[in-house]
Amino acid sequence: MTAPDFEKAGGLVPVIVQDVATQEVLMLAYMNRDAWEKTVETGKATYWSRSRKQLWVKGETSGNVQQVREIRIDCDSDAVLLLVDQQGAACHKGYRTCFFSRLAEGRIDIIGERLFDPEVVYKK
Amino acid sequence: MTAPDFEKAGGLVPVIVQDVATQEVLMLAYMNRDAWEKTVETGKATYWSRSRKQLWVKGETSGNVQQVREIRIDCDSDAVLLLVDQQGAACHKGYRTCFFSRLAEGRIDIIGERLFDPEVVYKK
Repeated sequence: MTAPDFEKAGGLVPVIVQDVATQEVLMLAYMNRDAWEKTVETGKATYWSRSRKQLWVKGETSGNVQQVREIRIDCDSDAVLLLVDQQGAACHKGYRTCFFSRLAEGRIDIIGERLFDPEVVYKK
Repeated sequence: MTAPDFEKAGGLVPVIVQDVATQEVLMLAYMNRDAWEKTVETGKATYWSRSRKQLWVKGETSGNVQQVREIRIDCDSDAVLLLVDQQGAACHKGYRTCFFSRLAEGRIDIIGERLFDPEVVYKK
């Protein structure tokens, strides 16, 4: 199967996730070969969680799944771009995008809106 | 200075580069702390080249510089999103975006248009 060069990348390839409707960049995650194959087969974005050290079907806990509409690979075969239909918020902190912090004159502005309260959704 | 968590990330942080005008995702690169500080100070996108093991001011050879319009940091402080004014092509292979290869039914479609011939620009 046509795939990124996981060997060159040391096993994990960074994946940029972009909203297919709004073009907003939602998050950056990582895939190993298993996550890649599962994503291609199921059409549901699946990543490798570096902190939990396991496959992670995005949204399986929160319900905020990502239906994959398009998969692109970069010129060096060591990065992936997914265009997705994002249900709800992509960010585990409850924001639509993980990139809700903007640098402005040396400090951080929060520019996103919180769509859910993570303490409720993840029952922490 | 407010910055990504380079220590947690092992020194290098992935950087998503998005065209501020078209919202197209152009490339993925990496920054170490020096590249980050140079980018913030100069407003010109500066990365760490993993292959050449040196700082790399984007466009210094090709002329295809990236003027930084906005800098965002993700929720875990281990990924960066730059919104840039891209001069010419972002990709060293002459395409506007490095993500010119789309997976379609198990094979790759080239969807981008070549803006320059790398053999001329880089005098290989």
